[in-house]
This record gives sequence, structure tokens and C-alpha cells, in this order.
Amino acid sequence: MIIDGMADRPLEELGGKTPLEAAKTPNMDLMAKIGINGIMDPIKPGIRAGSDTSHISILGYDPYEVYTGRGPFEAAGVGVEVKPGDIAFRCNFSTADEKGIIIDRRAGRIREGTDELAHAINSLDPINGVEIIFMESTGHRAVLVLRGVGLSDRISDADPKHEGNPPKEVVALDRSKEAENTANILNQLIWESYNILKDHPINLQRIDKDQNPANIILPRGAGAVPEAEPFESKYGLKSACIAETGLIKGIGQITDMDIIEVDGATGGVDTNLENIALSIIETAALDYDFLLINIDGADEAGHDGNLNDKLDFISRVDEVVGKILEIDNAYFILTADHSTPISVMDHTGDPVPLVIKGPEVRVDLVEKFNERSATLGGLCRIRGSDIMNILMDLLNRSSKFGA
Amino acid sequence: MIIDGMADRPLEELGGKTPLEAAKTPNMDLMAKIGINGIMDPIKPGIRAGSDTSHISILGYDPYEVYTGRGPFEAAGVGVEVKPGDIAFRCNFSTADEKGIIIDRRAGRIREGTDELAHAINSLDPINGVEIIFMESTGHRAVLVLRGVGLSDRISDADPKHEGNPPKEVVALDRSKEAENTANILNQLIWESYNILKDHPINLQRIDKDQNPANIILPRGAGAVPEAEPFESKYGLKSACIAETGLIKGIGQITDMDIIEVDGATGGVDTNLENIALSIIETAALDYDFLLINIDGADEAGHDGNLNDKLDFISRVDEVVGKILEIDNAYFILTADHSTPISVMDHTGDPVPLVIKGPEVRVDLVEKFNERSATLGGLCRIRGSDIMNILMDLLNRSSKFGA
Repeated sequence: MIIDGMADRPLEELGGKTPLEAAKTPNMDLMAKIGINGIMDPIKPGIRAGSDTSHISILGYDPYEVYTGRGPFEAAGVGVEVKPGDIAFRCNFSTADEKGIIIDRRAGRIREGTDELAHAINSLDPINGVEIIFMESTGHRAVLVLRGVGLSDRISDADPKHEGNPPKEVVALDRSKEAENTANILNQLIWESYNILKDHPINLQRIDKDQNPANIILPRGAGAVPEAEPFESKYGLKSACIAETGLIKGIGQITDMDIIEVDGATGGVDTNLENIALSIIETAALDYDFLLINIDGADEAGHDGNLNDKLDFISRVDEVVGKILEIDNAYFILTADHSTPISVMDHTGDPVPLVIKGPEVRVDLVEKFNERSATLGGLCRIRGSDIMNILMDLLNRSSKFGA
Repeated sequence: MIIDGMADRPLEELGGKTPLEAAKTPNMDLMAKIGINGIMDPIKPGIRAGSDTSHISILGYDPYEVYTGRGPFEAAGVGVEVKPGDIAFRCNFSTADEKGIIIDRRAGRIREGTDELAHAINSLDPINGVEIIFMESTGHRAVLVLRGVGLSDRISDADPKHEGNPPKEVVALDRSKEAENTANILNQLIWESYNILKDHPINLQRIDKDQNPANIILPRGAGAVPEAEPFESKYGLKSACIAETGLIKGIGQITDMDIIEVDGATGGVDTNLENIALSIIETAALDYDFLLINIDGADEAGHDGNLNDKLDFISRVDEVVGKILEIDNAYFILTADHSTPISVMDHTGDPVPLVIKGPEVRVDLVEKFNERSATLGGLCRIRGSDIMNILMDLLNRSSKFGA
């Protein structure tokens, strides 16, 4: 169970405590008391991990090999059945004027009708023999997947970053034919999207309501879908993923876990934690050996620099932890994927606390779950890439190396 | 000094203590008090090490490179002077009936006369130009070494694992000529062993006494003898190995240490610890810079799940530690090669405690030698592969990397 961005740095306004030290967390503290504690570097000390690279590392995959950019994970997360070799992109629906200048990168923060717009692009004919797969994500976001031969992810972004500019021409970042071909396809696709979207009924309605039309797509973050061994064949554990965001669901998807959808899971502090807890308890009762759980709100509060939200959210997640603690006969690992300090409003490389509760752990003397108590625990300091090895060993499911 | 399999997990019957926490160990505790402590992962966190791979790692060799299977180390351990490129096997003397069906994989647990039987096989002519080296080990065990050109260790085992079956035909595990050639030699050798052993005087005597004859050999665990830099040239330390089992003596042999034989060392809980202690003290007084010591009984007790034996053996090993502590002017490192928990009855990947006593260590606050006290020590959590570097540095014998 990974509480996204929960760890933090000491804050003056908390008398030098971190939010996790200051928040009311009786259940996490109970878990620390009956478990073995330590601190964990998701990748290695000081390295600022993304949520994606951290999760990849914690699941025992090498992020330097598997992580090819955010596109593939986002695409998988919204339900595109990506295949190794596909090139995936994150996209914005944006607004272009009649001269092709981007006047709103987020198309008036469009929320409705993107499924129909996406369908129109998804229905386009192949370009240079390459299949165009396009799907809406949340809000103005969408994903694009190119499938075919002669493709490369070594190409630049189309997003001009600032309004008042035309889409940037996509160019090859190396001298390969594949990169040039992919850049050509993208440049063609961007203007085809404009042609197909500008008079789309959804957009005509928007114009009628004085809303910016979503009449062009701007791809960025090209990444080749990596070859990742399915989690189940890697560990022999039948697994499910309970996550809120497309990014983490995408990691579950690419490692071939079952994805459990939770009603009301928003990925923010306003998420429905009751439903998430219920879903965890229900899924744990099914025929799974392993659950990957990600709850995202503390990270959002950290990125927003909103201390009260972070304190409050941590306390509410603590209640979810209390419910999971009632599950018997399981190993339960609680940690964060990185720190998102209120003072930094972004991820940092500070290590995160980690606790393992279960039948045969060497229970230590730690009695609180937080960044500093954990440093005195029996695990000392480990890395994300150690976690699955430690768990497999506790489960007596790992094979011996040697005699 | 490596106490094989000494570390463990908490046990309910010990009130949540581990055997090492519960056993009377005044000398180990004294050593913890005057030394620097930590926990150690022989390979890396969670990885279940064998005794062989752990020792290889602790001596500063990469087990993923050097460890080619148990055969080469067993062969070296019983005194075969193996050479890089040799293919070595562990063998059983077994009993086949007149139809060639294995009716006893351990030949009535034969204890005497195996030297003569082994000599008969060792005297066989080369097969396809490949020299046959064969030597008895303890009980019904023996080792086989093939020496010559055109050999491979990518072949299957002959041992059918269960009585009532003929020896399994050895087959190549890849498509190389070498593997096919080696498989052919093995298949020929197995039946030659039957022809040469079935009417051997030792076996005729056994049949007279209603004992199962040791009339066939069953090789398994093929491994190519690795190229390992001699310990002395790697570190400039003249070294000796005091070990009980063939496996660990083999590691000493392959790294070119002097092997010190100890009378009455059985590798079990019934071993002669007085003789082992005496041998350590005597060898330490000789012209050596480094001793590798392995005592095996705690591992045996762990594999047997025998708590009383493990507790008792640890207390008796503690007396050996007391004698070594009297040696002045030496660095003394005490650890285990892996955990062999009573509850699991096999090796686990749990880290092991480690203490270093010597003139210039940063003595810490730890006062007990066990799995949990050690986590609060000055070494924190290290790996087996760190140990020789730390020792060489304490000895002021390592070279500086940089200026």
C-alpha cells in the first residue's frame, strides 16, 4: 500500500515536525509497533523518483530499463491495450484559431464530449501504414498510440507550451529513418485532427455556448511501450491493482495485473476513501496473492503546498489502514512512493518510511510510523528494488540461490 | 568466523525471541559490546543465499559469476584438485537391481569401503578422450570430475529422484556439440560403473551381509569449475580455511586457501567443537593473515527444525568465540552466512547479525549479539560483498581510489 507523496520534510509551522509526524495516525502507529520498520529509497538515496519510476522499482522492475516515458503508462492506464513496440503519447485537446495558432492549450478545460471527439480521431485511416489509436483521458487529456512498423520514440513534442504559438513542428531527435517517419506521421496527424475536429458537432455546440472548441490535439512525451515480464510469471503471484490515477493503473496494466476500478476514486483529497477501503477488503477476499494499492491525495496536497489538506488526508487514510490491519494472515507493507514536501511542492529524493506487518517479521522497537521513527527500525535503510525480494522471502516463495 | 545458518526468526515458543536472542551467549555479547555491529545481507536484501553463494560473496567474489553449481565446490572440498574448465558433479552411490532399476538411491547408506569403490571408477580409461576423476565423499556421496576438451555443464541429471525407476538418461540442455558429447560420456559412464561395481569384492561382502550393494553411480548438479582469482593474489593475505563440510572446504580450495583438517569435525551438532577451537588457536599462531572459519551445526539444527539442538549448539559455539576473543591484535568478524529459521527448516533471506572486534573499530552502543540488537549498530545494514573491503580498510591494506 503506497500512499503517494505522503513523506515530507520538517515544517516550522508544525514545530519542526513533518505532516506525518503531526497528523493523527493511531492505526499506522499500531502497525509500526507490531511490525518491522525502516526507511526506503525508491530508487537510490537522493534520487527524485516519479510515482511511475518508484512504483516500477518497488515492483522489482528496473526503471532505467522499463521506464520509457509517461506516455505508455498513461495510455495503458486509460485502457488502451498497448503492446511492446507501440509508441505512446500524452495529448491535450487544445483550441487553435483559423490561422492554426493555439489560443487555449486546454480547450476551455473541456470535461464532456471528449469520448466522441476521441472516437473521431480513433477512426482515422492508417497513416503510412501505421494504425492510429486515440482515447480520451480525464478532462482535456487524451492518449495517442501509434502501432506499426518503422516507428521510433526519438521525436520532439508538438505542444508549444505557451499560447499564441502554432503547434511545434515535430522533429526527429536522431538520424534514424524510424524517427523521421514517426515525426512525419505526427505532423500529418496534428493537422488531420484539426480538419476532423473543427466542425465536429461537439465543437459546434461549444462554440454556440462561447466555450473554446477542442479542435486540435497536441501530442508530447513519446515513449515506446516497454517489454515487461508479467508480474504473475515473474513472481508466481496472482495480482490486482487498486489505484486512482491512469499512471499507476497503467503500471498495473503493463505488468498484467487485474485492474480494480473504484467508484468515486478521484486521485485527489476529495476521493472516496470509504469506497477505496471497501474495494481493498473485497479484493483481498478474492483469489489474489498480491494487491498493489495506491492512494493519491497526499501527493496532490503536497504539490499544492496545502498543509491542512495533507494533514487531514493522512488522518483519513489512517482509517483505511485500520481496516486493512483487520485482515488476518497476510503480510501488509505500508510506505510512500516518494516525499512531496509542502515546502517544495514537488517530489524530493528524501527517503520514505516503510513498515511490514505479518506473521514472521522480526518486530522491532519502533512505535510510531513516520520519517524519523522509521530510521531506528529493524530494516535500517533499504531500496525500492529490495521490497519484492523481502516479501517473497517472507512468503517462503523465493528460490534459493546456491546450496 | 561464519556460524552457518545461526540467524532465525522470532519464535512463539521463545516468547517472540529468536534462538540467538534466547541462547546463553556471554562471549558473543561481550564481543558485541567491544565491537561494531550491524546487519548483513549476504547477497542483497531478501535474497535466499546458499552457504556456498554466501561465502563466495563474503570473500568478495561475485556469486553470479563464480557460482556454477554445487558440483565444483563439493569436488574441490573432498580434495580433487579441480581446474578451470573441468565439469564436476555430485554423485550418489546407489543400488540397481539386475534390470537396472534403482532400488535404493543411497545404497543402504553405505559408510565403509566407498574409497575402494571410488578407486575402481577412478581407474577407468578415458571415455572419448575425457579423463574420469572420481572420489568418495561422506557416506553414500561421491564426486565426479570430467577433464578434457569438448565438454559442457549444460546437461541434465541422471538421478531419478525416486526409487523404482532406472537412471534418467542424461540429455543435453542446449544444442551444442559439447553438451551432447558430455551427455554421451555420462550415459556410458553410468553403465560402466554398474559393470565394474556389481561384482566388486566390497559389494559381494555387502550382499553377504544383506546390505544393499553400492553398484551404480548417479551424477547430478553438473557445474563447470570456475576461474577464480586466488584469495592471496586478490588481497595479499596469506589465508587458511577451517571448515567442516566439503562445500565450504571447496570454496577454500577454489580460492587457493590452505585447508586445515580438524579431527572429529562432522558438520553436525555432534561435531568436536573443542578440536575446532584448538585448531583455530593453533592456526592463528601460524604465519597466516586471514582465516576463514565455518562451523555448521546450527544450520543442521535449523534444517531439522530442532530448536533445542539449535539453542544448545549456539551456546557451545559461544565458548569457541570466547577462546578466539583471547587472541590479541587481530580483527575478528563474527557473523552467519544466512538465516535457517526453525519455523522454515531451510535458508531464508532475512539479514544476519555481524560484529567486528579489533583495535580501531568505532565501538557502538550495542551490547548483545543477535538479529535485532545488531540493527542498532554502527554498521547499519551492509552486504556480504562489503566485508572484505571493510576488513582490508581496517587493516590499512587497501589502496586509495583517487587522490
